[in-house]
This record gives sequence, structure tokens and C-alpha cells, in this order.
Amino acid sequence: MKPAFFLLEKILLVCLFFSLFLSSEKAFCQEKDSLFIRRIYDEALLRGECYQNLRHLCKKIGHRLSGSEGYEKSVAYTHALMQQTGIGKSWLQSVKIPKWERGAAESCFITYTIPEEEKAATINIKPIKLRKSQFPITALGMSVGTGSDGISGQVIELSSFSALDSLDKSFVKDKIVFFNHPFDASLVNTFDAYGEAGKYRYLAAVKAGHKGAKGTIVRSMTLAHDDYPHTGAMTYRDTVPKIPACAISTNGADSLSKLLQSVKNHNLTFIQNCKTHDDVMSSNVIGEIKGSSHSDEVILIGAHLDSWDLAEGAHDDGAGCVQTIEVMRIFKALGYQPKRTIRFVLFANEENGLKGSKAYAETYGKDKHIFALESDAGGFTPRGFSLGMSKEKKAVFASYAKLLKPYLASETDRNGGGADISVLEERGVPVGDLEPDSQRYFDCHHSALDVFENVNRRELELGAAAIASVIYLISENGL
Amino acid sequence: MKPAFFLLEKILLVCLFFSLFLSSEKAFCQEKDSLFIRRIYDEALLRGECYQNLRHLCKKIGHRLSGSEGYEKSVAYTHALMQQTGIGKSWLQSVKIPKWERGAAESCFITYTIPEEEKAATINIKPIKLRKSQFPITALGMSVGTGSDGISGQVIELSSFSALDSLDKSFVKDKIVFFNHPFDASLVNTFDAYGEAGKYRYLAAVKAGHKGAKGTIVRSMTLAHDDYPHTGAMTYRDTVPKIPACAISTNGADSLSKLLQSVKNHNLTFIQNCKTHDDVMSSNVIGEIKGSSHSDEVILIGAHLDSWDLAEGAHDDGAGCVQTIEVMRIFKALGYQPKRTIRFVLFANEENGLKGSKAYAETYGKDKHIFALESDAGGFTPRGFSLGMSKEKKAVFASYAKLLKPYLASETDRNGGGADISVLEERGVPVGDLEPDSQRYFDCHHSALDVFENVNRRELELGAAAIASVIYLISENGL
Repeated sequence: MKPAFFLLEKILLVCLFFSLFLSSEKAFCQEKDSLFIRRIYDEALLRGECYQNLRHLCKKIGHRLSGSEGYEKSVAYTHALMQQTGIGKSWLQSVKIPKWERGAAESCFITYTIPEEEKAATINIKPIKLRKSQFPITALGMSVGTGSDGISGQVIELSSFSALDSLDKSFVKDKIVFFNHPFDASLVNTFDAYGEAGKYRYLAAVKAGHKGAKGTIVRSMTLAHDDYPHTGAMTYRDTVPKIPACAISTNGADSLSKLLQSVKNHNLTFIQNCKTHDDVMSSNVIGEIKGSSHSDEVILIGAHLDSWDLAEGAHDDGAGCVQTIEVMRIFKALGYQPKRTIRFVLFANEENGLKGSKAYAETYGKDKHIFALESDAGGFTPRGFSLGMSKEKKAVFASYAKLLKPYLASETDRNGGGADISVLEERGVPVGDLEPDSQRYFDCHHSALDVFENVNRRELELGAAAIASVIYLISENGL
Repeated sequence: MKPAFFLLEKILLVCLFFSLFLSSEKAFCQEKDSLFIRRIYDEALLRGECYQNLRHLCKKIGHRLSGSEGYEKSVAYTHALMQQTGIGKSWLQSVKIPKWERGAAESCFITYTIPEEEKAATINIKPIKLRKSQFPITALGMSVGTGSDGISGQVIELSSFSALDSLDKSFVKDKIVFFNHPFDASLVNTFDAYGEAGKYRYLAAVKAGHKGAKGTIVRSMTLAHDDYPHTGAMTYRDTVPKIPACAISTNGADSLSKLLQSVKNHNLTFIQNCKTHDDVMSSNVIGEIKGSSHSDEVILIGAHLDSWDLAEGAHDDGAGCVQTIEVMRIFKALGYQPKRTIRFVLFANEENGLKGSKAYAETYGKDKHIFALESDAGGFTPRGFSLGMSKEKKAVFASYAKLLKPYLASETDRNGGGADISVLEERGVPVGDLEPDSQRYFDCHHSALDVFENVNRRELELGAAAIASVIYLISENGL
């Protein structure tokens, strides 16, 4: 069995040898490209500036929720950074974006009685003791508020939408639906777990509202066991009453679940003072280096500048923004003149509306984008790139990515691009997303833990270098 | 160019198809193996216990330096854990190990004058102001102490041994040699930087002592810019005077270097009260599951139980220890009866002597070890395995590791095993080392930052699952 296997392995090696021999011109180019990629990595790792830029963005500006003062400050700061690179040009593109504010004083508590104490009270004619427990919650983004008194009611705990479907409207009416659907820890890439569980955050209010619930609570989208609730986008439908929706921390969800199984006569209250204001005018930040020989072909690299408001948006997506600017800086430092036009876009309002990317596509979608890459999966060690393009183009991209094998960033097995470039993908543009190691992303994603301290300098820099490398390769060799 | 390339790619695919077809029995085994590996990952990720065991080891026991009370406690704790798995047997193997203690009150300061102030004093007949600066240092492991007054002298800053070689003994005599050799940040795998810079820590005292220096200070082995000095093993030679050696934090090294360039008449003092006691008796902790059909063939999986004393040895190598025990627990949970004998070894005294692994090899080296794997590169996301074995065996191992591709842990390009199994490697045993992502390892390695809080649960669990998988594959299919 083994000898046959080895013999065929040898045949494979011979085939590979001839393929390299016949494509000697390709091999020559690859040597030039390999040398340039080494220079890119040296620049990023030895003289990198993205980490200090991220520090400024996180510590001097803070959160950058759409419509906030922080967002506008970050527009000015990143625009200035692009200008300081001294390469190409940069400008602001006007975008109308939503303005939602969390407001102060979010809280959640439950009052309840214990069955044994009720029994004892009945026998001894003592007053029944009412107990109280608190849970860490945070409003989901774009949710309506509860009013200052909050909403109160009985809780129905469910693990899925299908469990809700099986309930009568009369049973759900005026109750609070608690979706306690956990992330699937058995999925190695945590984005797969997010993809599966995310719908509970996004659609909980629609599903529960449709059944007549007065509010909904969703287990936070994370594998961590802790006390940090994770916010994120949710939606309403015009045909369904808009009910308040919040996220509860994973420890909180476990405690609430345990409590609901053992108590009687509970009443849960949650209070959130969030509010949606009128839309406001804001900006995408765009940089561009004109191509020398194929200037009509545009390669886009982007990230989103807005963030949620609970922390500093360090990984999501401050990391992607400073990496994008770092690519400009690296190209300038290396004196690189791209053959194709490269556009560097920091999108407004990815988190709660995608208005920035839609505005970009409306204005610039007619330009001939040959590739759009996003960095929006955190500033962790890059493993490679996920791709959304034809099989043929994937094969070409994979042949480029092989040059990143010495840098441990050559994987191209995963499908799909990012949210901001999905608008271009729908128009047929080949897309990709930097694919960092995913294990720690949802520990901090959309929570108070998404701070600068949780970003590692080396990991961030390696991401910038990997992006610069593939952008360089596509600018040189097309796609 | 491209069509030819694609044609040959197709030929390769056809060859691959036939190789799979001809090795259908192999393919069948792989399916069975793939299913079992999925069960291993489910057990590790959904019901894993290694993280909570690491918490106990770090928080209830603390550091486990050879000869310390903590080490002996950790022997008892891990031995009990092995027994609690309820599979195979476990025992302690006696080992004589060194006992070195740091002692209290490590410090380093420099007094100096500023040239301009000296000039002003000369003109105005004012007293010259003596300035003072402090730096964070820590004694290197096994160094001699300085006595309570410390040692004082002028500093010679050097970036390499060859710079020292070019100096006259008379110039170096009674001075303190400061090796300010930085980690090479351009190397993507940080272990490559460690491999290059590590000699300055290990040999500084020998090299500087040989030239007549009275002490030596070494820049910490890390890419981080911070105030934490990193300890680690150093050595003496019988023919060279034993001079005190310490590590200075990277920020401290940068400050000291800058200061030395601008001051006059400096005098540096460093104090460390470390001491080497007589050797003491201690133990390796060994577990074993007897093979059902090839019990004479032994597969070893190991880690080192001792740690440095500045923190909790969480990554180095608490992670490897709890992963090793987790493999036992997973096999028990899955009801797995290995074909070959599997031995689980927690070695004593890796950090400052390798006495545990030497004792193991002396007693058990005659057993037919077909493979020895170590986990001693931190509890980070596994990328694959580094290998120290023949090309033929590497090819077989790589064919097994391919089954870990869905778990993103299939890389086998890197060479070498770990320190503890190097003694077996010298005897011809094929070895390997779990290869986790290396970016954050040296941020905490041998410093006060190597604490439980810096270990991520998922990353640790994925490592345990990757180890269990390859041990299972080799137990089933040989190597």
C-alpha cells in the first residue's frame, strides 16, 4: 500500500518539476516578487507605524460610532495620516449615515420567589421573601429604548427560532423572549460559529416581536465565559412591532437560565435608554495611488472606520484601518510605483447600516475594480485570505499567495470577502478578506474588551505586511 | 504561460486522483481516522478540562522552579490528575535536580554626571551634581550572586560577541559588559530570533568573564518594548571566573544605551542575591497506557513541569503539562484503547539542567520509542508540528498531519523537536514539537508576564486536540 503511494508521490514531484521548468518566465517574476515581499515585511516589522497609529486612534479618540464626535475626529485623523504618507492623494467622500445613541443607565434585574420559601410561608403564615438578581446587559445597536422605567415581564427562554415557532402567540404575548443560543465551540474557525449564531442577534426582535413579545434578550455572540455583554447590529421590519432588544453576557445568560429553572413568580425588568436620531452627514476617507501603466484598473483595500461604542474598536476595525494606511506608508517608504491604481478606503457606518460602502459603490462602482480586499477580522496573526471570486481567479490568487508561505500567511481555502466590499462583490468584483487567526476575535468583538491593550503589535504588523504583499502582487501581475 | 501552467496543474490533479484510487485501503483508514479526530476535537473544545487544570496549577501552586516547594506541589497535583483520568497507570521517577534561588532585592542603578554640568561647575566652582537612574533587572538562572553591596563598575556596551573579541583584556578588566543584542524582528517565527539571540543570555558570563569583566548584563530575549526583564538559563565554564549575570528589560536596555552615549563618569551597580544550593531529590511524573497490539512500541508525549520563578509558568510550560494530561483524559473519555504504548511524561528541571529528561532517557531509553512529541512552545493556536526525523518518516507524518487541515494545524515544514526530547533524539528517536503561533510567546517567556491570564482557553484546547490527534494516528498506523 505504502510503496504505491510513494511511487505516485514521486510522479507528482516530477510533474511539478516540469511545470516549474515550463513556466520559467513565471519563476523569474516570482523571484523579483519574493525579494520585494521581503522588503515589505522588513518595512512593516522593523519600521512599522500602524501600532502607534492604532494607539492614537484608540486612546486619543476612542469609540467611533456612526454619528458620534469620535467618528468625525477619526475621519480627520486618518485623512491626515494618509496625507502624511506623502504618496498619492486622499479625499473625503460625503455619506449620510444613521445616528443611534446608547444613552446612559442600562440595567437588567429579575425579582423572584423560591418555591421552598413560599411553602414555608404558607405553613407558618410568614411574608414571602422576594429575591433579586442583576445581569450585565447592553442594548443591541439600533434597538429602541425601553423608557426610563424599563419593560417588565415573564421570561421565556428558548434555544432557537424553531422553538419559538412552535409556541402560540397567546403564550408569548407580553413576555420577554430570551434567546439563549450558544456559539458552537466545536467549530474551529470562530467566524463559522458567528455565522450560525449571529441571526439570533440580528433577527431576535423581528421574530419575538412578531409573536407579540414585549422585549427580547440575546445571549452574547462569544465563546468566552465572562461578564461582558456584546452589542451588534439588529433589525426591525415595518410590519412587526419594534420591541427593545439587548444582549446579556454569557455568564449572565447561564445564571439567568439556571435561575429560571428553579424559581417561581419571576419578573424580569430591563432598561435601556438608546435612541435613533435623524441621519447625519459624514464621510468615507479615501486615498489613491494612480497606476503607472494600467491606471484604469483599480485595486481596493479597505476597512471600516466606525466602531461600536462600548470600547475603542481596536480590533473591529481600528486594526484594519491602520493596516490600510500602513500599506500606503510602506509603498512610499519602498519607493513603489504601482502599475495599477490602488485605492485605500476607510468606510463609514459598517456596523449599523453599511451606508459608507453603499455610497462608495454608487459613486465609484463604475470604475473597473479588478480586486477589492478588506481587513475586518481583527488584528491577529494572518493565516491567509478568504476569497470571493471565480475558480480561475482563485487559482491565480493562490499562486500569488504561495509567495507568502515563508510568512505563514498563504492559506486561501476559505470563501468570501467582507461586509463593506459585499456591495462591490454583488457587482461582480472579485473580493477577499485578510484571514487572521480567529480564536480570540469574539472574546472582545463588540464588547468593552475591544481595546488597544488586546492588540499585539507583531500580529498587527504581520497583517499589514500580508495585505501590502498581495496588493503589490496584483498590482504587478493583475488578477 | 498561464495555459501551460494550468494544463500541468490538471495533470497533477489526475495523478492525485489515481494515487487516491490505488491507495483505497489507505483512504478508508483515513475516513475512520478523520471521524475519530473529529471526536477528539469535540471532546477538547466542548468538554475540555485543561484550562481549569492550568488555572489550578498557576493560581493555587504558582511558580515551579526546580527545588522549590511549588515544584513538589505540582508533582503531587499532576500525578493526581493523571490518576483521576482513570486510564492507564502513573508513577513518579526519582531525579536529582539543582536548586537555585533568586533571593530577594534585585536592583540596578547607575550614577553619572552630565558634561554641561561639569563644565559649568569648573567655571563657577560649584559642586558637580551626581545623577542617578534605575533599571529593571533580574538575575539569569544559575548565576552567582553579587553579595549584598552588589558589584559596581564602568559599563561597556556591545552588540555582539565579535565586538567583544576585538577588545583587549586590559580594557575589559573589572568592567561590566552590557550585551545589547536585539531580537531580530524581521524573522517571522520568533523562535528563529530566539535561536539567534539566545546565545547572548547563555554565554555572556563565559565570554565576558574570559576577558576579565566583573559582571555582565544582557538585553532581555523578547520583541516587546516594556519594563519586564526576562530570566533564563546561562552557563559557566570551569576555566573561566564565574561572574554575576543578569537580564535588563528592553526599555531598560534602550534607556541605558542612550544614557551611556551622553554621560561622563558613570558607575553602574547591580545587586542580586541568588544562590545555588546542593542538589535535591525530586521527580518526573509519568503516565502510561499500554498498547493493545504493539505494546513494545512506545510513543512519548511530554512537557516540562518546572518553570522559572518570576511568574506562574503558564505558557512555559504549564500549557504543555495540562495538554499532556488532557490527551490522557480525552482518550479515556472516548474509550480509546491505543494499539501502541503511549507514555505521558512531565519532565523535571528543563529550565536549568535538563536533569529530568536525562534521567528518563537513562532509565527508559532502551524502550523502543517510535516517536517522542513535546509541547513546549506555549499554549497558542497550533499551526502544526516541527519535526526531527528522517525524510521518509517526515513524509509519513505529513500524510497524517493532512488530516488536521480542517483544524488548521497541518503544517510540518519546520525542523526540530524540543529540549526535553533532544536526549531521545540523540539516540535516534524520531521527535516532534507542537508548533503554535509564535508571535506572543516571547512577550511573556521567562518574565513576570507568564501568567494564566495570558493564556487563551480556545488556543490551549486546540493544542491539546492537535496533540491527541497525531498521537492517535501514530498509535493506530505506526511511524
